[in-house]
Amino acid sequence: MSLDKLKIRLADIANINHAASVLGWDQRTYMPPAGAGARASQLGTLAKIGHDLFVSAETQDLLAAAEAGAKGLAKDADDARLLVNARRQMTKQTKVPTALIVAITETTTLTEEKWVVTRKENDFAGLAPWLGKVFDLKREYAQAIGYKARIYDALLDDFELGMTADVLDPLFEQLKAATVPLVAEIAANQNKVSDDILKRPVSEAQQEAFGVAVLKDCGYDFNRGRLDRSTHPFCTNFSCNDVRITTRYDLEWMPGSLFGCLHEMGHALYEMGISEAYEGTPLAGGVSLGVHESQSRLWENLVGRSKGFWRHYFPKLQKAFAPTFNDVTLEGFYKAINAAAPSLIRVEADEVTYNLHIILRYEMEQEILERKLSIADAPGRWNEKMQKYLGLTPPTDREGILQDIHWPGGGIGYFPTYTLGNILATQLFEAAGRAMPGLEGDIAGANFAGLRKWLEENVHVHGSKYPPGELIQRATGSPLRVEPYLAYLKGKYGEIYEL
Amino acid sequence: MSLDKLKIRLADIANINHAASVLGWDQRTYMPPAGAGARASQLGTLAKIGHDLFVSAETQDLLAAAEAGAKGLAKDADDARLLVNARRQMTKQTKVPTALIVAITETTTLTEEKWVVTRKENDFAGLAPWLGKVFDLKREYAQAIGYKARIYDALLDDFELGMTADVLDPLFEQLKAATVPLVAEIAANQNKVSDDILKRPVSEAQQEAFGVAVLKDCGYDFNRGRLDRSTHPFCTNFSCNDVRITTRYDLEWMPGSLFGCLHEMGHALYEMGISEAYEGTPLAGGVSLGVHESQSRLWENLVGRSKGFWRHYFPKLQKAFAPTFNDVTLEGFYKAINAAAPSLIRVEADEVTYNLHIILRYEMEQEILERKLSIADAPGRWNEKMQKYLGLTPPTDREGILQDIHWPGGGIGYFPTYTLGNILATQLFEAAGRAMPGLEGDIAGANFAGLRKWLEENVHVHGSKYPPGELIQRATGSPLRVEPYLAYLKGKYGEIYEL
Repeated sequence: MSLDKLKIRLADIANINHAASVLGWDQRTYMPPAGAGARASQLGTLAKIGHDLFVSAETQDLLAAAEAGAKGLAKDADDARLLVNARRQMTKQTKVPTALIVAITETTTLTEEKWVVTRKENDFAGLAPWLGKVFDLKREYAQAIGYKARIYDALLDDFELGMTADVLDPLFEQLKAATVPLVAEIAANQNKVSDDILKRPVSEAQQEAFGVAVLKDCGYDFNRGRLDRSTHPFCTNFSCNDVRITTRYDLEWMPGSLFGCLHEMGHALYEMGISEAYEGTPLAGGVSLGVHESQSRLWENLVGRSKGFWRHYFPKLQKAFAPTFNDVTLEGFYKAINAAAPSLIRVEADEVTYNLHIILRYEMEQEILERKLSIADAPGRWNEKMQKYLGLTPPTDREGILQDIHWPGGGIGYFPTYTLGNILATQLFEAAGRAMPGLEGDIAGANFAGLRKWLEENVHVHGSKYPPGELIQRATGSPLRVEPYLAYLKGKYGEIYEL
Repeated sequence: MSLDKLKIRLADIANINHAASVLGWDQRTYMPPAGAGARASQLGTLAKIGHDLFVSAETQDLLAAAEAGAKGLAKDADDARLLVNARRQMTKQTKVPTALIVAITETTTLTEEKWVVTRKENDFAGLAPWLGKVFDLKREYAQAIGYKARIYDALLDDFELGMTADVLDPLFEQLKAATVPLVAEIAANQNKVSDDILKRPVSEAQQEAFGVAVLKDCGYDFNRGRLDRSTHPFCTNFSCNDVRITTRYDLEWMPGSLFGCLHEMGHALYEMGISEAYEGTPLAGGVSLGVHESQSRLWENLVGRSKGFWRHYFPKLQKAFAPTFNDVTLEGFYKAINAAAPSLIRVEADEVTYNLHIILRYEMEQEILERKLSIADAPGRWNEKMQKYLGLTPPTDREGILQDIHWPGGGIGYFPTYTLGNILATQLFEAAGRAMPGLEGDIAGANFAGLRKWLEENVHVHGSKYPPGELIQRATGSPLRVEPYLAYLKGKYGEIYEL
């Protein structure tokens, strides 16, 4: 049957992509330094072979034949959705000339390297021509893909299927309108909370042991995963039965590794929960970066930074790290891990200020893409927006526009998925709470099985079967909504800062 | 130019194979247990894609065009040899039907799994039909490849390019004739040497630190490699700049990890020393398993088990493992690490008895292949030969014919390369000694740079450029000779056992 033949071909392509992911994991965890050159070449070959195999005449024929043979399938049948996804990818991938793909890959690889150097030397002028080239190529890419309303949508779709700037704009405006004054209020009440106790040293071995214990409690399955170390924590998977996470240990900032573990575990539970029947098909894998981030943020913030969670774990933490936190109260610890303050660096930002960092980038990348803002003027614009949203001005570009690797790496249209993840996390958590009235108590008892099951049944198991919008509607009964998130932020931080 | 186009294609294929090696390394070091199923599928895809790409009409055309364009090249020019190797591989790979390759891959994978179970349960009858199938398929494979004198040669050539049973037979007879009486003499003098001191516990951390220090002294470059742990130690590489080794730690058998490190390091130095210009071509990689094993055995035995080596390292070892070996003399330690005695298990055998284990297997696999011995009668034949060569009879098949994974895994014609490695190690070491009269003193001073340089210039750098016979002739001035090895064994063990 033609569908079976197509599936075999697609499984081969999935295997090539998973092999590349293994090489990527190795590169960021264990690869000896001198191995980098050969590794880039190996990854290049796998990318080329995977792409060529997918857009080949043979695969296109297999897809057309499978579609012809699947006319009678129900719209929601797995195979019908599989063909929809395969066709969507085929349409997209065949629109982009191979030469452009190669140019983007090469330019972004070189620009990333250039970024490492210019960031260190605080030399935005040195990066500017490279960054301009990246924006030029991504503009060309967006034109090749095509779009209905705005050019940005063509790029955004790569990271957040079906999302458009016209949908994001009002959401983000609402978020900004609510957050900017909240941040200012918190800034005016900084004396109410201190996170100094979190700078007390805790050994790497102690942090790791505690992190592993929490991961196990939450249901991360070490038979199907691993925890390693890497400079930049990440989650990757090579099947739903091999889903790995990494973290990093800062001896004088214990929450870094712990909340990092919970964050990556959220990503991992998603991939581990996807139907095994989808393995090797276009139904496998998380459906979008936003939905993925909703899972990591849910575990990191809504579970991991909740008072109930620490009612259970704080005595255990005190014991595990004794005597370091013997003099700290549960309330003091809870406030410390939720301390919020305007800051310059996105990756170190708290729950409240985080989205303002994102909105700044979201607005600026559109301005540059639409040629309303030149690369040369971008640093000034950055600083102006930082002052407006967070009341701070970066003393140098290193702490401003040079801080992120995303734009140099071609990740234009990527940033909004972080905030979408924050919003979705709350919306999903609220829906889970409606389905399970005892959820808060469960968390305070370290009983996560119910939450995991709800997430698995309503989000994880579907993999990429439903587009994000449809998945959220099915899981929560409504489309993407920012209101629950705003209520959560106001409630939680209003209490913590006594606003 | 057509040769350049061919090289690009061959580099892609090399990249696919190296990617598969990364997946193999991961599988044996860090992969979570549940990842095995997907991993097998990924490796299957890479093998299929690499093979298909190589035997494709396009690659065949590229090769023919490159050959036509290279008529004027000197016989020893790198490109000329590159084309010879590519043509040899093409001739071989195109002779074997894809269905047979798939059947062998599938059957040996399943038979290996069957072996794990039947070995544990000491159930040779349960393995027999599977093993029979493997021999049948390898017989069919040998017929497809073709051979001049004996069917065995077609299989042997896969592991030891150009070697034939007619060359091995007299070598192995000579070795057997000299070793069997030597083993008997040693057996009669067991009271002269004891290795009991080596059973004293040494912590894993201490063993590892000492092993790493020795590896660094010998010139293993951790910038281009790593040392990890695995059940079965191995060396693998993904380029000459990423060559990794593994070892295992037995708390009550310290020499296991140390000599294991030296052994795998010998393999690693070979791959690290190959001309970087050969990367991605059929000139890259060690030329045969025998030559590879010569490098591992040279460092493990001729360097690592020599008295000079321990004159330098024994005081360091005493200090590193203090006070465990404070009461042991250098002489006592040297004898203990060289203790020899007939034993049942090949992988635990000493330098003297080791080759008799190999010869037994070499003789038997030929008898089975030529249908002179049935699978059913094989265990009896095994025990009979063990009695004849080593004076021992295995109490169970688990300690007899069921001990090795090689035959179940399709490694028929593989075993002789171990003994070839032992022979070649001595021949090469002798040639190095002729070129460097101060070699013994260098080793006793832990100065290995000269030996490494000699090996690099005479063996390593050439990669697969010269076939093994030609390489040995160039490096030592003579063809493969067993005499230096016999003299070495008799001299060393005659002294140790006061024969």
